[in-house]
Amino acid sequence: MRYLMTFSYDGNYFKGYQRQKDLKTVQGTIEKELTKINNGEVTIHASGRTDVGVHAIRQVAHFDFNKEISLDKLKDALNNKFEQEINIINIKKVPSTFHARYNCISKEYHYFINIGELNIFKKNYIYQYNKKIDIKLMKKAIAVIKGKHDFKEFCTDSKERDNFVRTISKAVINKNEDLIEIIIRGDGFLKHMVRNIVGILIEIGSGKKDINYLKSILDNDTTKIPTLKVPGCGLYLWDVYYK
Amino acid sequence: MRYLMTFSYDGNYFKGYQRQKDLKTVQGTIEKELTKINNGEVTIHASGRTDVGVHAIRQVAHFDFNKEISLDKLKDALNNKFEQEINIINIKKVPSTFHARYNCISKEYHYFINIGELNIFKKNYIYQYNKKIDIKLMKKAIAVIKGKHDFKEFCTDSKERDNFVRTISKAVINKNEDLIEIIIRGDGFLKHMVRNIVGILIEIGSGKKDINYLKSILDNDTTKIPTLKVPGCGLYLWDVYYK
Repeated sequence: MRYLMTFSYDGNYFKGYQRQKDLKTVQGTIEKELTKINNGEVTIHASGRTDVGVHAIRQVAHFDFNKEISLDKLKDALNNKFEQEINIINIKKVPSTFHARYNCISKEYHYFINIGELNIFKKNYIYQYNKKIDIKLMKKAIAVIKGKHDFKEFCTDSKERDNFVRTISKAVINKNEDLIEIIIRGDGFLKHMVRNIVGILIEIGSGKKDINYLKSILDNDTTKIPTLKVPGCGLYLWDVYYK
Repeated sequence: MRYLMTFSYDGNYFKGYQRQKDLKTVQGTIEKELTKINNGEVTIHASGRTDVGVHAIRQVAHFDFNKEISLDKLKDALNNKFEQEINIINIKKVPSTFHARYNCISKEYHYFINIGELNIFKKNYIYQYNKKIDIKLMKKAIAVIKGKHDFKEFCTDSKERDNFVRTISKAVINKNEDLIEIIIRGDGFLKHMVRNIVGILIEIGSGKKDINYLKSILDNDTTKIPTLKVPGCGLYLWDVYYK
């Protein structure tokens, strides 16, 4: 029996998504409870991992269970264990051929920046940049990101992969008073790619780099990690899309 | 030399405001740094204490220093130590007769309640009630609170005091979608008084108690602690007023 769960989590309570021995991670926490209920080891397969401190509004993962289960009861039993650090939104049955990672066609991330005064109550949820920034320049820059590009320069561990081409289908910046929201949707993301993109957008918005610099590193084969990789606390896996 | 500092703090990082041996508290944390800078013990005198988990948007405290200091440098030095758990907003010189507690004429608290779906990202900042509630009934009830009353029934440790009369000058409820904000300003507050008031307002809004019950315990001499004392995480000391 294969099931698909949709869930959110607050990245502050975990050492990242991926299971690690002796560390509290999102995957490890969920698997531990599912394994107890299943009376047998359960592995969950998410759409992808997220880094330390990064949040998820809607992450999805599939898993196999030995037996038929009441999905509402399972959801409640899990949420009772997770102390509002993870919240299971729903669980449904899927065909046994469904795979949360391989079938995923796109993901959307949102990144939040406070350009106003320090807000200590949001420090774990919104990047406290706390300086003015030119939003028009950032909007011009993000338009360059949209489309199909080689993002090798935006990948922190570029030795791990050989294909750095990704297609960005949505790249939008909203501003509401002192809060900037950067929305990026694409068919796949490399390690730290969103945070490196946001870092360059901030460098452009603050006048430290210009759009020509961005153009020069996009689709380029050298590896110059951007100087400013923004913190994980401002980043949210917002949604995951399937056919 | 007497100084007055205005500061905010995130209650999640402290075991309450008041200094306690071997526990991390707001007062203890600030005093420790001031004592180092002063080369001599410094005690801060706040407008009043706040309980475990309760936040402050604007708390004020006075303290005496041996020497003249650069207030901007002191502010920056402190904020560099406080890791965005406490934020010193400003420090100014005051007459040596000024007292942050005795001269305080009123304080304002705000309490936030989420009556919509659980938001795990706000669980330490907004009380996750997560049920519908009758806001009109709550507004009628809060109007009863306004004015000069004996609040003995709303005080958790009523043995500690003998005067329970307080004057509430502002008592307002705002609703913005699923967020309820309760604003209470008064000339003084007893232990847990705001949270006990909010608890009764919720009981009335959810139909468990009626306004006659509220009237029957207000200005009453018995002691019936309300059944629902709401959690500290939704409570903010919002501002402190002087002549």
